[in-house]
Order: sequence, then C-alpha cells, then structure tokens
Amino acid sequence: MAISSKIESFLQSSSLIRKMFEEGAKLKAIHGVQNVCDFSIGNPDVPPPPEFQKILEEESLNTDANIHGYMPNAGYLNVRSAIADYINKEQKSNLENKHVIMTTGAGGALNVILKSILNPGDEVLVSVPYFVEYKFYCDNHGGILKTVPCTDDFDIDVDQFEKSITDKCAAVIINSPNNPSGKIYPEKTLKKFAEVLRKKSSETGRTIYLISDEPYRKIVYDGVEVPGIFGIYSESMICTSYSKDLSLPGERIGWLAINPSAENCDKIINAAILCNRILGYVNAPALMQRVVGRLQGVKIDVNVYKRKRDALCGILDENGYDYFKPEGTFYLFVKSPDKNESAFVELLKQNLILTVPGSAFGVPGYFRISYCTDDSYIDKSAEGFKNAMNEFMSGISQ
Amino acid sequence: MAISSKIESFLQSSSLIRKMFEEGAKLKAIHGVQNVCDFSIGNPDVPPPPEFQKILEEESLNTDANIHGYMPNAGYLNVRSAIADYINKEQKSNLENKHVIMTTGAGGALNVILKSILNPGDEVLVSVPYFVEYKFYCDNHGGILKTVPCTDDFDIDVDQFEKSITDKCAAVIINSPNNPSGKIYPEKTLKKFAEVLRKKSSETGRTIYLISDEPYRKIVYDGVEVPGIFGIYSESMICTSYSKDLSLPGERIGWLAINPSAENCDKIINAAILCNRILGYVNAPALMQRVVGRLQGVKIDVNVYKRKRDALCGILDENGYDYFKPEGTFYLFVKSPDKNESAFVELLKQNLILTVPGSAFGVPGYFRISYCTDDSYIDKSAEGFKNAMNEFMSGISQ
Repeated sequence: MAISSKIESFLQSSSLIRKMFEEGAKLKAIHGVQNVCDFSIGNPDVPPPPEFQKILEEESLNTDANIHGYMPNAGYLNVRSAIADYINKEQKSNLENKHVIMTTGAGGALNVILKSILNPGDEVLVSVPYFVEYKFYCDNHGGILKTVPCTDDFDIDVDQFEKSITDKCAAVIINSPNNPSGKIYPEKTLKKFAEVLRKKSSETGRTIYLISDEPYRKIVYDGVEVPGIFGIYSESMICTSYSKDLSLPGERIGWLAINPSAENCDKIINAAILCNRILGYVNAPALMQRVVGRLQGVKIDVNVYKRKRDALCGILDENGYDYFKPEGTFYLFVKSPDKNESAFVELLKQNLILTVPGSAFGVPGYFRISYCTDDSYIDKSAEGFKNAMNEFMSGISQ
Repeated sequence: MAISSKIESFLQSSSLIRKMFEEGAKLKAIHGVQNVCDFSIGNPDVPPPPEFQKILEEESLNTDANIHGYMPNAGYLNVRSAIADYINKEQKSNLENKHVIMTTGAGGALNVILKSILNPGDEVLVSVPYFVEYKFYCDNHGGILKTVPCTDDFDIDVDQFEKSITDKCAAVIINSPNNPSGKIYPEKTLKKFAEVLRKKSSETGRTIYLISDEPYRKIVYDGVEVPGIFGIYSESMICTSYSKDLSLPGERIGWLAINPSAENCDKIINAAILCNRILGYVNAPALMQRVVGRLQGVKIDVNVYKRKRDALCGILDENGYDYFKPEGTFYLFVKSPDKNESAFVELLKQNLILTVPGSAFGVPGYFRISYCTDDSYIDKSAEGFKNAMNEFMSGISQ
C-alpha cells in the first residue's frame, strides 16, 4: 500500500492516455513538431483578447494593502456583483452577488458543487458524449457517474433519462456547447428535460439538481444561442470558467452560480462556500478574479475558430467523412469509417494526425478532433485524412 | 436532503466560528474598525517584497503564445527546477524537477498528497496544537485525523506518538513552525520521531509517511533554523506555499515536494500529479508559477513580524500573562488565566480584542493571537489585555 488503492487503479487505467501522449511526443521527435497535426488536446491557441492584456497590466500595478491577500472564500464582492449583473443581462435572471462563488476554474466549480450536494452512493447522470473528468469529480465526493445514451444528433435523449433516473439520483450534468460533439442543446429539449426532472423529483421525493457546465458558452457559431438554464429549471447551477472565452486555462479562474429560485438556495450557497474552503482551494486566485471581473462580456474572436472549423469540415467533406457539424466549442466529433475507432485513430496517427477515440467520451465509433490549433496544421492534415480514408477503404476492398 | 448530510453537519458545527466573525463585525460597526484589535485571522499585513512587484509587472507583460494556457499538470518544468535547486541548497537534498509539483497553495498540496496515499478508514496523526483544516483535508479523502498530545513546551511528544500509532496509520502531519504555537520542532526531536516512525512502519508492515506542512518556514526569529525533514526521514514530503513568506495568500500558489529517497517515490509523484488533475485543481495558476519561480530565496522583511511579536510579548509580560514565546510564525499562543478559555476570549472581546480559543486547535485553556496586523492595534491592545486580566482577577477574588 504505497499509495491509495483507488488512485493506483486510476493510474493503471489512465496509462493508455499517457501512452497516447508519449507516442505523440515520439512522433513529433521523429518527424518534427511542425509535421505532426496534434488535434488531441483542448489548449486554446487563440491569444487572450487585447482588453485582457491591458487590464492584467493595470491590475498588476495595484499595490494596495492586502491586494494579494485573502478575501472572503467566495471571492471579491465587487467581482461577484459584476458577474451576477452579466448573468442577469444574459439570462434575464435576478442574481445578487451572493449567488456567485468565484472558483478555481470550472473544474473547481464542479468539485465544489458536487461535494456540496452528494451523499455516499448518490448517482449523477450525464448524457454521452461527456467530458471524462466528470467521472473522477463525482467519485471524489462519493458519487457515481452514470451515462445516458444521446439521440442520433447528439441531443439529450429525455426519454432515456426518464427511464434512467432512480431515487439514487442527486443530480444531472449537462455540458452545452458539448465537448466533444459541439452540440448546443436546444431550448425545446431543455424544457422537456426540466419537465422530466421535476416529475422525477416529485416521484423520488428528492430534489434532482441540474448542473450546467458551460465553459464553451461563448464559443458558438452561425448565430446559434445557448439557452439560459436558470429560467427553465429552478433547481439549477452553472459552472464555468474563462479558460476558453478569454483563453486563460492555465490561470484557473471561473465561477459557480446558484439559481436564486432554488428552494434551498441559501443552504447550497453556504455549503459551496464551505466546500470551496475545505477542498483546499480556499479562494479563486486573487489577481485573476480582479481581472476577469472587469472583462464581463469580453471574449476572444470566435471567427478564428469558425474559420478553422469550416476549413476542417471542408477537408472532411472532400474525403467522405461523416461528422456532426459543431454549433460551438472547438471540437469536431467524427464518425470513424472503421467501427473499431481505435484502429482508425491508429491509422490517422500513422498519417501524423493525433485525435482522441470516442470511447474516451462514452461514444465508441467516433473520434474527436480538437481544432484550437494553428491553421497550418489544419491545412497539413488534408493529406493525412485523405490517405487514412484511402488506406482504410483499400483495406476493406481487399 | 437539500445538500450533503456531512456538509450540513459541518455547517452546523462551523456556525460557532461564523458567529464569532459576525460578532467581531458587529463590534467594529459599533466601535469603529480602528478601535477593535482583530487578532483572529492570519491574513498577512506585511506587503509582498519589492522584488515580487517588479517580477509580477514583468511577467504580466509577457504575451508569448500560450503563456496563460495549460502547462503539464505538475507545473512548468523550469519553475520546478528552480524550486528543486532551492530546496537542495536549503536541505542538502538531491531533488530533480520531477520531485516538485506546483499546487494551489499549501491547502492544495495537502489535499493532493492525502488523496494520493489514503485508503478509506486510514488514520493520519497530528500533534496538538494543530491547524483545524487538517481534519477536513483528511476527511475529504476518506481519512481520519487523530490528535496526539504535545509536551509542555509544545514539542512533539514522541512517546505519545509511539503509543498512538496503529496499523491504520498511513501518515503523520507536522507543522513547524507551528500554527498556533509558533514552536519550531528541534532536529533532536525530529530524529527521535523518525526513529519511531521507522520502527512503527516495520512493526505495522506499512509505510508511515511524514507530511511536513511548512508555510511558515521562513517566518522565524532569533536565528533559529527549521531543520530540513528530507535528510531525517526518507518517507517524507513537504507541502508549502508562498502565502506567508511572500504575503500572497489570495493567489493560491505553493508546491508539494516528494523525498527522492522515498521507496515508492515515482509512484507517489504519478499519483500526486493525477490527483492534482482530478481534484479539479488541474494545475497551479500559471502566471503566479512563473513569478514565484523567479523569487526563490526572496521573502518579506521578517523583522516587521519580530517587532510585533516583541511588542505583544512586552504587553503580555506587563500584565501577568503566561505564554509560549514564538520562535516563528505570526501567532502567539497564550495561556488563558481562566481555565474556561472561551469565557476569557469573551472577556477580551468585551475589551475589543478578538482572539481564537485554543479548543479550535485541540488545546483548551489557551487562546491564539494572530499578530500579522497593524502596529496600531498592538499598541491599542495593551489596555484591553490589562483590563481583561484585572476584571478576571477581581472576579476570582470576589
């Protein structure tokens, strides 16, 4: 028992992903970084907007007393007010600063709310495809993540949820725009979903919370809007970060917002503040709180990602790939020509294209392209996608 | 079941502390902030050193690609190298960058290492007095914190530990310089302690890790040195932050270092990196990593705290208080004239002095003064300490 048995098993199962990264690094060493199209990770390539740079420089000059010191565990009141105002404008809600808790990224927000509400053995349901970290986040706090199949076009399958929710269900997580599919759940679906959650809450005698993980809310295309959840379902909370819309994933800054209409709103807020403290986060990083507080509504130029999306869709179209055209995020979820998507991901790798198998997101038979990367790699990938498809087709016809 | 039952009970038990804060706030509202000597919290009053300000401004100008993006979960390699070099100089150890993992403060480091090593029901032993958050940190990961009495002069009582360690014991935590006593555990004690840990590890058949929580290592007085733990006990790790020595508690930046001599060193490192990720920290804040990486060996002017300590000791001496003279930290642990220290803390509050009862640190009969506050409050407290003592003595003699 050198380390925790559970962590030991996690390490063993995550060795596949490590292996993938190592092989990617090896490929780059052999062929040169510029020749390997690494579409495997979601590390935004677009620089933060100029407003961020200006305000960061200003804030770093601030030498007021205690400016890098502790503030309340929930964060600076004025920052929380600015965010509450912004959410209210966006969602026509009526949040006050107390409803917003500054967190160490969306990962921090999710852990804080899950610890706040979960009892041992509680289930948390999520629609596939889903961000793989949710499983760990639930497990951290004694919960069990259960996956629910989606519809053919990656929407929430409300009927499947209705069948899957038992009295063990404490919460559902939605992630829209969705990583990895790029799907935005439409308002109509969400309203039907809320109806089922209300019905099931009443049947099971326990409140089913809706946790909306929204880091990609501002990375959307073609004028599609992401419906606000607060007006649709009262027992809800939003987790998000500035990792994608301000391109700051390394700075770990985000927030958790509790719906003021939730029946036990104040109790949830107090629980979340306590959990933010006792999970060792203590508070979200001070300087970045002050910076993002002044950047409400500012975002990176989404057209850059749109251009990349369209270029990639063009390449995929030309070579006969089937895929879901993303409405948001910087991911493309592509149907693997080979039913065994790991084999096809391997074939792509031989053609110097790194992607992630859909199994990692609960949907085998697909692979994910992360296109938050330099245009040159997208251009370069055309040949690899073509060759991989040809090689696969010729393998079939032999 | 609006929230987690456990968190609900935590909220109830922490309501006393909240009540204390609320009453303090009320006192300030009535008498004016400048008239209430708030010695209850440990939020450093000394500004960060000028070197910090200079480097923060420089680093905030950096607009390199991906400069606010993800880096490896363990942190920037060059920052980890700088820290490893510094530790090696300080402790004559032989760490490489891989032995250092950047964390979201010491709270993050403690949670990461506890999650890495604990199995459900495992015990973690700590000497009183102790930092109350340890209890939550252990509980977060299925562990149980057990307290062990200290010697009369707040040293580790090694014999008591020998009696208390069972085969459930996975780790011991030490905190030196100690919050709240200001004690620095001497090398002689630590060597004897290490001997017992080795003996007990061999008896119980499981490795007992020594987790050294050292955020106050550089806040020391009178030339006393804090012995390095890595040369004394191989199965050890250090958790720390720059919260106190650079006065940056709100920025949440620290590190975890694993002793290269630990038998399963690499396994522990991999576990810790995974836990840093899956606990939702993901990585320590990027900008602050780069800043502290360039500030190795830099610290605030400790003489400022020494002056405050000496002024307070003078006041306590004059008024017949018994206390342990702190060798480090910015806390003073004072024997309560009244056996019921809560009653005396209340008496002090009536005299506009806010302190924390020793029961909060596992040592009833004492109270803690946090003197990282403006000199004016220390001067002003003389009268309150005098009056409280007089009132208590006259109460006895009646």
